Amino acid sequence: MKILLIGANGTIGQAVKNELAPRHDIITAGRNSGDIRVDIKDFASVQAMYAQVGAVDAVISAAGNLHFGALADMTPELMGVGLADKLMGQVNLVLAGQHVLNDGGSFTLTSGVLSNDPIVYGSSASLVNAGIDGFVIGAAIELPRGLRINAVSPTVLTESLPVYGPYFRGFDSVAAAKVALAYSKSVEGKQTGQVYKVLS
Amino acid sequence: MKILLIGANGTIGQAVKNELAPRHDIITAGRNSGDIRVDIKDFASVQAMYAQVGAVDAVISAAGNLHFGALADMTPELMGVGLADKLMGQVNLVLAGQHVLNDGGSFTLTSGVLSNDPIVYGSSASLVNAGIDGFVIGAAIELPRGLRINAVSPTVLTESLPVYGPYFRGFDSVAAAKVALAYSKSVEGKQTGQVYKVLS
Repeated sequence: MKILLIGANGTIGQAVKNELAPRHDIITAGRNSGDIRVDIKDFASVQAMYAQVGAVDAVISAAGNLHFGALADMTPELMGVGLADKLMGQVNLVLAGQHVLNDGGSFTLTSGVLSNDPIVYGSSASLVNAGIDGFVIGAAIELPRGLRINAVSPTVLTESLPVYGPYFRGFDSVAAAKVALAYSKSVEGKQTGQVYKVLS
Repeated sequence: MKILLIGANGTIGQAVKNELAPRHDIITAGRNSGDIRVDIKDFASVQAMYAQVGAVDAVISAAGNLHFGALADMTPELMGVGLADKLMGQVNLVLAGQHVLNDGGSFTLTSGVLSNDPIVYGSSASLVNAGIDGFVIGAAIELPRGLRINAVSPTVLTESLPVYGPYFRGFDSVAAAKVALAYSKSVEGKQTGQVYKVLS
């Protein structure tokens, strides 16, 4: 398969590349690295990426920023970071990609455990991750030509514990290599409309 | 209790008012009707509403627009309608309200069944409703001073079937008066971080 991997330089992106590269042709994309530069917040940039790459069989997104911070200090602008980037950025990949992917192709987006298992400072993440899961469930029943869509919703990564561990006390972490298996299942299987929770 | 009801003129809003008005002091707000005019998309308008109303014990939102339409025709701009209005509009009520509600006060937002039971044309609604539920879960654990927050997630209203029925084939509808009970539970009970699904 020809697979477009956005966010290939991140911890999950690298693990997904390691998992899938032995079997597939991977094209990497990212804001500051990869075969192609793309800003997923910018719909025109996403469309330009697809025009450059040509038809692909799978799109994997392991990209997306949002603001972590106290609810008391949260503003519409700080909420807007995640809305524009991790949420609408990933939705943009689907809205543009539905018209150009090969028949039977798949989208795999990334959400996260905070959708339903919240932490302090995570109100924007809970909103964004849940929104991604909802979009995936809704979009799955409308995609044409056998196109599929799933989300991977991991808990905190073991590799991220040095930075994020204090915010995720009591959460079991999971290695990025194990999270990568869920992307493999989404791309190489035939399921659609699923949210793959990878919690341990 | 002194209760601020946004969207009081809608089908749910009227039913909530009927349920709660015999026991409480209800202040109504809406874009085009009510005691106070507010555009929940506009954070300054929300702040002005709270300044005008003064301290309240409960905020109920039965407001919020979004775009229904085919995924194939969906654009970032059409997705943006629901993101700005039903999603961030309701979040704005909490971000501003957390600083002004009376101790122990509550927020009750409105999401909907499409978060996890999708229909054709509903991808934006699935995203928005799931996002609201996620935000409620995340915000609940950070609100100070005993403030609480819940969401009511109703299925299609019986009163809405003449218009929406064809899009919700096979869904059991529920009368707005029954949905209103979930708002009563949220406001007059003590639970927080709950999503009250009202499916039949």
